[in-house]
Amino acid sequence: MVSRTVEYALRAIVWLASQGGSPCTTRQMAHATQVPAGYLAKVMQTLVDAGLVSSQRGLGGGFVLTRDPQAISVLDVVTAVEPIPRIRACPLKLSAHQLRLCPLHRRIDDALAMVERAFSESTIAELLAEGNHDAPLCPNPTAQPPRAQLTTPKRTGRPKARGA
Amino acid sequence: MVSRTVEYALRAIVWLASQGGSPCTTRQMAHATQVPAGYLAKVMQTLVDAGLVSSQRGLGGGFVLTRDPQAISVLDVVTAVEPIPRIRACPLKLSAHQLRLCPLHRRIDDALAMVERAFSESTIAELLAEGNHDAPLCPNPTAQPPRAQLTTPKRTGRPKARGA
Repeated sequence: MVSRTVEYALRAIVWLASQGGSPCTTRQMAHATQVPAGYLAKVMQTLVDAGLVSSQRGLGGGFVLTRDPQAISVLDVVTAVEPIPRIRACPLKLSAHQLRLCPLHRRIDDALAMVERAFSESTIAELLAEGNHDAPLCPNPTAQPPRAQLTTPKRTGRPKARGA
Repeated sequence: MVSRTVEYALRAIVWLASQGGSPCTTRQMAHATQVPAGYLAKVMQTLVDAGLVSSQRGLGGGFVLTRDPQAISVLDVVTAVEPIPRIRACPLKLSAHQLRLCPLHRRIDDALAMVERAFSESTIAELLAEGNHDAPLCPNPTAQPPRAQLTTPKRTGRPKARGA
């Protein structure tokens, strides 16, 4: 119900938020978040396109958040990569259900709405504040990624196309 | 967040529940629920395996529910085809999060738990009672499916393997 792409995007944003504005490279983030580097690069591009993250080129460059973690909700991140597919019209295109969903689709959409609301009420700053400040995801965030992991990142899957 | 397979399984169960115990063939159900016949056949087999539906062979045979719709929750149907993937352990396998999920995964699991609870509190009988009894899914449930649709069912996709 929460796709791999959403999970990875959330890990990336939480990680960036924990770095206090210091730019992070894809390699550093891939190590800390345990996301395959190729997959993460695509997720990061989607987050840049959505305006949640900016990319700084050159030596010492990397990704940074464009907003304070207090101003980014979990829903902002989810919506940037895979918006929650609320049911706005009868999936069966039944004329009798044009203006009002049937109870089945009402129930499903109510569940989606609950998730949307819960995610909108959680900020990234809250996730950091509740956790261990030093290690929101990685046991040793300041450690350099081991060279073997840098040069041969495992790829376990591909991100879905945006909006798919 | 609610897969096509889950949506189709729910349509099938709601449809069977609306038929008052009369056996329904895959063709009749495919027409009423607007699910491709090949896809529906696989979903129905999964529901039979899960014990929610039984299959009666021969003339006048078809699928029937094994329990009263009051005794089948939306969650029973969801769990039969694609259980909600609750987060029981740290997806990053971090030793510090062995006994307690980090705030990020706690939030995601809380959302999944909310959906699970909401679905467990809705019975199939409730869905029928709240809707139009004559037409929970199809505008004309007693109509025979048109021959053209019977002989050339459109297949728009395949169900996921169970548990995938």
